[in-house]
Amino acid sequence: MPVSDETFALVAPATMPQKPCQTDFQLVRVKNTWFRIKKGEALSDCKDEITLSEAKIQVRGIFTSTGHGQQLYVSVAKAELQEIEQDFSRPKGNLLDFSQFGESVSEGGISWTIEAPIYFCYKVVETYNILDPSNTTLLWGHITDPQQLELATSGKRKLRRFIVIDEVVDELYGSKVREYFEENNVQHKILALPTTEETKSMDLVLNILQEVQSFSIDRRTEPIIAIGGGVCLDIVGLAASLYRRRTPYIRIPTTLLSYVDASVGAKNGVNFLQCKNKLGGYTPPVASFLDRSFIQSIPRRHISNGLGEILKMALMKHKGLFDLLKSHGKYLLDTKFQSYSGSADHGDAALQTTRIAIETMLEELAPNLWEDDLDRLVDFGHLISPELEMRVLPSLMHGEAVNIDMAFMTYVAYARGLITAEEKEQIIQCMRGLELPVWHRGCSWALIKRALMERLKHSGGQTRMPLPTGLGVAEIFNDTNEETLERAYKLWVRDCRTVLEEEPAAF
Amino acid sequence: MPVSDETFALVAPATMPQKPCQTDFQLVRVKNTWFRIKKGEALSDCKDEITLSEAKIQVRGIFTSTGHGQQLYVSVAKAELQEIEQDFSRPKGNLLDFSQFGESVSEGGISWTIEAPIYFCYKVVETYNILDPSNTTLLWGHITDPQQLELATSGKRKLRRFIVIDEVVDELYGSKVREYFEENNVQHKILALPTTEETKSMDLVLNILQEVQSFSIDRRTEPIIAIGGGVCLDIVGLAASLYRRRTPYIRIPTTLLSYVDASVGAKNGVNFLQCKNKLGGYTPPVASFLDRSFIQSIPRRHISNGLGEILKMALMKHKGLFDLLKSHGKYLLDTKFQSYSGSADHGDAALQTTRIAIETMLEELAPNLWEDDLDRLVDFGHLISPELEMRVLPSLMHGEAVNIDMAFMTYVAYARGLITAEEKEQIIQCMRGLELPVWHRGCSWALIKRALMERLKHSGGQTRMPLPTGLGVAEIFNDTNEETLERAYKLWVRDCRTVLEEEPAAF
Repeated sequence: MPVSDETFALVAPATMPQKPCQTDFQLVRVKNTWFRIKKGEALSDCKDEITLSEAKIQVRGIFTSTGHGQQLYVSVAKAELQEIEQDFSRPKGNLLDFSQFGESVSEGGISWTIEAPIYFCYKVVETYNILDPSNTTLLWGHITDPQQLELATSGKRKLRRFIVIDEVVDELYGSKVREYFEENNVQHKILALPTTEETKSMDLVLNILQEVQSFSIDRRTEPIIAIGGGVCLDIVGLAASLYRRRTPYIRIPTTLLSYVDASVGAKNGVNFLQCKNKLGGYTPPVASFLDRSFIQSIPRRHISNGLGEILKMALMKHKGLFDLLKSHGKYLLDTKFQSYSGSADHGDAALQTTRIAIETMLEELAPNLWEDDLDRLVDFGHLISPELEMRVLPSLMHGEAVNIDMAFMTYVAYARGLITAEEKEQIIQCMRGLELPVWHRGCSWALIKRALMERLKHSGGQTRMPLPTGLGVAEIFNDTNEETLERAYKLWVRDCRTVLEEEPAAF
Repeated sequence: MPVSDETFALVAPATMPQKPCQTDFQLVRVKNTWFRIKKGEALSDCKDEITLSEAKIQVRGIFTSTGHGQQLYVSVAKAELQEIEQDFSRPKGNLLDFSQFGESVSEGGISWTIEAPIYFCYKVVETYNILDPSNTTLLWGHITDPQQLELATSGKRKLRRFIVIDEVVDELYGSKVREYFEENNVQHKILALPTTEETKSMDLVLNILQEVQSFSIDRRTEPIIAIGGGVCLDIVGLAASLYRRRTPYIRIPTTLLSYVDASVGAKNGVNFLQCKNKLGGYTPPVASFLDRSFIQSIPRRHISNGLGEILKMALMKHKGLFDLLKSHGKYLLDTKFQSYSGSADHGDAALQTTRIAIETMLEELAPNLWEDDLDRLVDFGHLISPELEMRVLPSLMHGEAVNIDMAFMTYVAYARGLITAEEKEQIIQCMRGLELPVWHRGCSWALIKRALMERLKHSGGQTRMPLPTGLGVAEIFNDTNEETLERAYKLWVRDCRTVLEEEPAAF
């Protein structure tokens, strides 16, 4: 029995062309109907009631929320698709199922191109006294859908939460965490773990997942909660994103560095074969809950560590933030960011500093969540520091290594004539005021050259070097030559090496 | 020194309101300028040259390609944002950096909502003789950007590829693979591994990654290549998506099942704690290259196995495909899908069958790449089969377990009056023609009830049961009661249990 024409209507144009030819089609579904559209032809002679222009209006920019902050973004019909050539009905499907894939036919067979946008949505929420049992942020602050919120707060379903907490944080806050969940009648499992650069491995991720599996969470309604510093948030983020291909998770940063850095972005990961964050992903949390009161428990040196990343954002993007750090740096260190009401001289410097740091960070991260764009201002301080940090581990903290890198790069900007001697001086003075090291003997000329070679390898053959071009403004440069770098290095060593007494005791 | 107003312009509205209040803002960047926009107010009194309506036109639906098939999708300003309240310039940024995040102020502090669309783009390419050294598909068939393609084909850069191949496939095709890369002067490492349900684990993923690291691939330009069945493609996909947070990879399916299933979607994963695909993700490959000639090497039973998944798509979505399977099933089994030129009686049934199967699968997968939508027609045959498959492993192959599930569900559809006795008979006859089991003693009433309870737990409290409502049409049902299920079960056992002699010998 020969195959009928009708059966093959869908693939009719594809029956092995004799000569090389290229025909581009596009399938577009509007309501219940799929359209096959030929590319590059003018809109004319529409046989169907639904014309393409209507289709465009109907499908443009519709979002459909599907819970847990994960959303499907509905794509837009491309403007160059003009003619509806053929239509064939489908029994199911609605407007929100819309997607598109192109089909092109050549000598070798059909080729389909799938274009699928995934829409991430997550919240970063400032809160106070997050562990006060009457503060419900931790229970349902992550829920955006009103129906879900109603269901969650109705008390119909027994709440269950799995919590991973850094063991040092657990010593300080563990009893409050337990009390919080007990008072709110939440069935819970709290897993306290050592989360350091040394334990940051896939092994620890699998340990967590084993416990998650035995607690048996509902991957749709029971987010995993991580409480700790950046390493803890990174490990739990990776565990959650692997579990059942994606389980929602919540980040609660307890250090200044993670408060302004790890909590804002989507990155997670673990070290592998002595390489920092070699394995990981970009699945964002459903929410980050920020409570500054945790910061009062961390040592002064850790505050400086966090200030290093805040200074990075200030130097790249925000003169006002730089002025804040310059004027109020010591006050912020002394008060450990606990100035809730503000004082006459300092306004609410802690509140303002953290908010501006987060907003400037979001401006850079949100449009580039998966780091497709290699030109990143947030890479400032991160070209040489990874090499330095891994080499001298554990003597330098992350923000300290970043600051040494930034100090050198400030001299590079000066050597290139991008900033004045006076601006350079202001930057270095501000760093010192934040009690951050501006030089390190391990940061040799050989190490700098090696690190920049690594950079070239991993950033598509270009240095993509963010450099300040003033105070709070910056650009990406690809043309810094070795002579300039060496001149900058010599100036930097001359000016900064003399201040050994200001470096942390561990050196 | 008090903090100046100017410094805090960015966060001015957020200074700790005394009473609970809710103000929603939105930051929108157009060219070099960021706008803070208040929600829910009418557009009026624009102080700036750039009005919001212009902004909308400028930012709507722009894509920026960034290589490797990964693209950033530029988001669209929401229609309800009306007034430009305040603007503040930024030194850097361009139209393509556009993103949006909302900001809302309440008693507890600021809350930012980040909306970030990630745009996946990948190709599924039919090719012939992929291992013929003159066929360049395997070298740069994944590259879409013309500039990149020019660079890749220019010969300026030595090509390097890391290949993971299933060890059984390696025995058959390994020498051809080596020859291919040698003749094309590609520096390569071929890793042959046992890839079965038993070895499908995070351990194997880490083994692969260790080898990848020692080969030292460039994560931007050197995709990892996987050659094998579904398990191999799943493992390598997970390894690649973890390495440096995402390394491009290419899928080359060598079985019929993976040709029409694993090659088309984005899913990857490994088993964990005796649970199927418990860990994994949704990062799609940059390309899947389909060469039907591999299928000639697989046993007849494996062809039936793949036909099970094709039949699923036929029953759910495509009467034409069902007719094809009904009329040409035996021919397809006999010829192992190798009918390249077609014969008088069968047209090019193999070509048409695979193409329709892939297109119908893409229609379902592309709009729901991360499985945000729980209502999935592709879940047909996958409600009871996971339980059955894991219970009787390794006696049933995946497609066989799926078919037993579909056979039972066909009786459920019949018991509900969704299909006629005659349609039910046609379906069961078609399954038998494809040499697929329609019943299994392990699929007891108790197992069915247990599997459906599991389903409820993992699909948001609803069964979401896809059922045929005719030949090639289907709907999702949430209201099948136990009495109907039991009636269907009894009918199914009565009709199908008698045909033990048609089941594979392993039973």
